[in-house]
Amino acid sequence: MKLYYAPGTCAVSIWIALHWLGADFETERVKLGSYEYKKINPSGAVPALDTGDGNIKTQAGAILSYIADKYKEKDLGPDEGLEDEFLFNQISAFLSADYHPAFWPMFGPKNYTTSRDEKDLEKVVEAAYKKIDSVAIILDNMLEGKTHIYKNKRTVLDAYAYILSRWLSKTPKSWTEYPNLKKFMETMENDEEVQNIIELSTKEI
Amino acid sequence: MKLYYAPGTCAVSIWIALHWLGADFETERVKLGSYEYKKINPSGAVPALDTGDGNIKTQAGAILSYIADKYKEKDLGPDEGLEDEFLFNQISAFLSADYHPAFWPMFGPKNYTTSRDEKDLEKVVEAAYKKIDSVAIILDNMLEGKTHIYKNKRTVLDAYAYILSRWLSKTPKSWTEYPNLKKFMETMENDEEVQNIIELSTKEI
Repeated sequence: MKLYYAPGTCAVSIWIALHWLGADFETERVKLGSYEYKKINPSGAVPALDTGDGNIKTQAGAILSYIADKYKEKDLGPDEGLEDEFLFNQISAFLSADYHPAFWPMFGPKNYTTSRDEKDLEKVVEAAYKKIDSVAIILDNMLEGKTHIYKNKRTVLDAYAYILSRWLSKTPKSWTEYPNLKKFMETMENDEEVQNIIELSTKEI
Repeated sequence: MKLYYAPGTCAVSIWIALHWLGADFETERVKLGSYEYKKINPSGAVPALDTGDGNIKTQAGAILSYIADKYKEKDLGPDEGLEDEFLFNQISAFLSADYHPAFWPMFGPKNYTTSRDEKDLEKVVEAAYKKIDSVAIILDNMLEGKTHIYKNKRTVLDAYAYILSRWLSKTPKSWTEYPNLKKFMETMENDEEVQNIIELSTKEI
């Protein structure tokens, strides 16, 4: 398997998850949207996972479910049963469909207004901060009394929640200001293996 | 089971899917974000599905997987196997995490700028049209040579893709301008059962 990533993106959560799962994989750093990378993944986005069957897999949430299932013996996916699987999918959907998109206007304000006036773009970013805070509060509530996002069990979703939440440090209200999230993040920040991957993923190649 | 919905929202796709699955369910129309409804679902959003176990289920994509699995004998979910399940989850993730969020700034431009100047809000909506077009093109490509979004098999994801794509008619480029999507949409528009639900869901109660 080969994971295509860019530093700081949610693709790094797949890297952490693959490592936790003991998968045999390599990584390749790419430039988002570049001509070269679009030959591999036409959307130009990461993550993309080449599992060797000719199709490039995309969508972080779907990839995380896939790899957790592929290495089921590591028990980093949902518990068995309709309700437990639903809960896992619900959290994954919250992260990919509510939490992650809240950050888009912060990273790319030019996609949210046709104005190119600096002041107008700042107003887009200001609005994004407000939306990001509202979803971070939801995540914080989900983590009440827990050090893992799914039930109280380590799963691949921890890696996802962690990588996305690091982006909060680019807003006026960092993750340290959400009490339950703070505990969760500190656990991940103190994990040497996780930090090793963060470091590797930011290296120039 | 009880489905909480609002007209025109993606919750209506759950209604269609529950109907296709032959589920025993009732529906309740709610006012998004209202005080009354927040007592049921604190986020104030739809869909919410009460399956009677004390928890209210949210997240359209996760709910669709859940109900398809609950009524597995109707075969409206993924085919079995890691790769087939991945493909289903990838399409579902595209719809909930890329396609759906592209419409948000069109419906709520005030969430995307702190400006309240009508012209600035129009610029947000203009930018949204561009983003919506780009994801509609991806969906159109996914539907090439097919009348269903997953493989060429009717699944609950058809209902999801259909309901979200109806929103294109609120943009300058309606679904009729995307050739593969047009065929898909016309099939759904010609389905009497689907149209009956659309009508029921828009009724004042």
